[in-house]
Amino acid sequence: MRDVAVIGIGMMKWGELWLKSLRDICVEAALNCLDDAGTDRVDMITIGTMTSGIFTGQEHLASMVPDYLGMRHVPAVRVESACASGGQAVRTAFLEVASGMSDYALAIGAEKMTDIDGGGATYALATAADQEYEAFHGVTFPGLYAMMALKHMEKFGTTREQLADVAVKNHRNGAKNPHAQFPFPVTRERVMTSVMVSDPVRLLDCSPITDGAAAVLLTTVEEAKKLGKPAIVISGIGHATDTIALAQRPNLYELPAVKLSGESALRMAGKTIKDVDFVEVHDCFTIAELMVIEALGIVEQGQSGPATENGLTAMGGKCPVNPSGGLKSKGHPVGATGVAQICEAVTQLRGDAAERQIKDARVALTQNMGGSGGSSIVHVLEVK
Amino acid sequence: MRDVAVIGIGMMKWGELWLKSLRDICVEAALNCLDDAGTDRVDMITIGTMTSGIFTGQEHLASMVPDYLGMRHVPAVRVESACASGGQAVRTAFLEVASGMSDYALAIGAEKMTDIDGGGATYALATAADQEYEAFHGVTFPGLYAMMALKHMEKFGTTREQLADVAVKNHRNGAKNPHAQFPFPVTRERVMTSVMVSDPVRLLDCSPITDGAAAVLLTTVEEAKKLGKPAIVISGIGHATDTIALAQRPNLYELPAVKLSGESALRMAGKTIKDVDFVEVHDCFTIAELMVIEALGIVEQGQSGPATENGLTAMGGKCPVNPSGGLKSKGHPVGATGVAQICEAVTQLRGDAAERQIKDARVALTQNMGGSGGSSIVHVLEVK
Repeated sequence: MRDVAVIGIGMMKWGELWLKSLRDICVEAALNCLDDAGTDRVDMITIGTMTSGIFTGQEHLASMVPDYLGMRHVPAVRVESACASGGQAVRTAFLEVASGMSDYALAIGAEKMTDIDGGGATYALATAADQEYEAFHGVTFPGLYAMMALKHMEKFGTTREQLADVAVKNHRNGAKNPHAQFPFPVTRERVMTSVMVSDPVRLLDCSPITDGAAAVLLTTVEEAKKLGKPAIVISGIGHATDTIALAQRPNLYELPAVKLSGESALRMAGKTIKDVDFVEVHDCFTIAELMVIEALGIVEQGQSGPATENGLTAMGGKCPVNPSGGLKSKGHPVGATGVAQICEAVTQLRGDAAERQIKDARVALTQNMGGSGGSSIVHVLEVK
Repeated sequence: MRDVAVIGIGMMKWGELWLKSLRDICVEAALNCLDDAGTDRVDMITIGTMTSGIFTGQEHLASMVPDYLGMRHVPAVRVESACASGGQAVRTAFLEVASGMSDYALAIGAEKMTDIDGGGATYALATAADQEYEAFHGVTFPGLYAMMALKHMEKFGTTREQLADVAVKNHRNGAKNPHAQFPFPVTRERVMTSVMVSDPVRLLDCSPITDGAAAVLLTTVEEAKKLGKPAIVISGIGHATDTIALAQRPNLYELPAVKLSGESALRMAGKTIKDVDFVEVHDCFTIAELMVIEALGIVEQGQSGPATENGLTAMGGKCPVNPSGGLKSKGHPVGATGVAQICEAVTQLRGDAAERQIKDARVALTQNMGGSGGSSIVHVLEVK
């Protein structure tokens, strides 16, 4: 297996981009990435999108994206694992380069979520749950995560305030991220008095509906050196699945797919979680971040609430979590999220994160999740 | 890159399977495949489906399929390139094994197309075309292929009878395939008097709406030998894209993505098209088979009509095309087709094709297409 480096990243301002189409945002992020890389050599394109078919009526992005990028005939594939589709795009591009099938692979993540009304978006997102046993009966994602939150609170004494603290921290970080959809701070009180969605999940516990895309260019470490690029290496990848329906899990307060994917990524990288300087994790709801940092071993089981309250995961804490602002503040265009996490990791590892820079960051971990934890993909990145 | 062999294939009876759900058919094909392989070791699953979200309201098959296969936690990814999604599933599984990321990779292709009404299915399929510049304006796939057929007839003198001959040949082959949806012969007259869909495309020029799945298990050639399996090797893979919208191509009578993907697969395999004993190609419409065999170099440009009429592509001809019955007779559950083509190739190369066996077949080529030729994936398989 060949060693793989990230040599280009492309982000864009995320939000409700009513004047930009799905093809526009894919192209914008990709061109930003190629500009950053300083090369437009692309042998293969992977595109992570959850459900462009339902959101926009457009499948077959594997044909559309190379076409509109001016790269007619370049092979491409669309990959999907619900909200972990972006992580899949990066992992699949990694395989292209690692296997020797391609020397330069461009991974794009994108979702255009506002071309459909709010009810439509809720339906579209619910296709990531078990349609016949969950979604059809009216259980949507805020409901699924609310059940997890209630169980976590009951089992470990996690408090309503501690859930809010996740949002407060991530908005504090996101306020320093020029690409974020909601780049402003929020207070505990504002979170705790926001509209109730599904008890105990309130509006400001939820990541938003977002239009956006992100892209990364991968090549071999050898090629990266030839181009004189700082070698940010993907040294570990972990990937695991779980039951699609929440009811079929042994319990509601753990995320086994996250644990397994974290362990295998760290094993592949020859690291432990203590070696990691910061993480970007999948905080689709505030409870998700708490459960994920337990599953990754950043804190002991049941300790994520107090740890967050005490600042362990804040900037300057022992292990900063979501310096980008996370899904909560940066936004969550579902297929783009996993790719954007890699963009943030590379930005930090290059020392280019300006106001939100983590000092001396050398090892990063990103965790991208699909559904209620039915899929999890972890990448470990290092400066080498 | 490690050498990759197919050690298991799984098919099932295709048709309007109203009593089977999407999860049922994925599991049925996969279990048939593991039975055939004689092992249930699976490190990774790839799932090709075009638009399960629109057809059934279910995305995130990457979580559902391992779950319902009794393989909780096994990593999985769903891949999509419209009707070439099955080819993508095989190609991605190939990369898993070739790269060393996985030793055993299971590729499943599936589509459940009858859970939606006929208009819904036409809409779902049209998401493979350019939504904003084609589908939205009412151009569906029969219309797109009709335009190609008219241009091919005008340019090369291809006749209405020759289009019908493709259907006649493929139904003759499919009549001997126990998995086919429509396993019966049709006459030229019956095709030419069937209902007009989009002039000159008639009902019996079209592949049908089908429920079905197919699966193949890949491993290294070394592992295959250890298991005492006949080594059917994937020696070449080619993949190319083209503009998603037909109007943006230089002309309507050629399929450049098919040509490029065929050339690169043969180059990788170290073969020419003359070395190939038979092919399975993407005859979504009768005109598609004619254009594809020209693009692959099986016949000269413009000669596909006369060649088909003269029996060159029939069983016993110089290069049999679609011994399985093709999409036309076997059915076309869009995500499953590319995987089923590999199943047919392996069946023939093993000498297990019974009544439809091609004598002394040693080298097979499969060609799977998305949209109006916006994607094409070619595999070359050999007995080694």
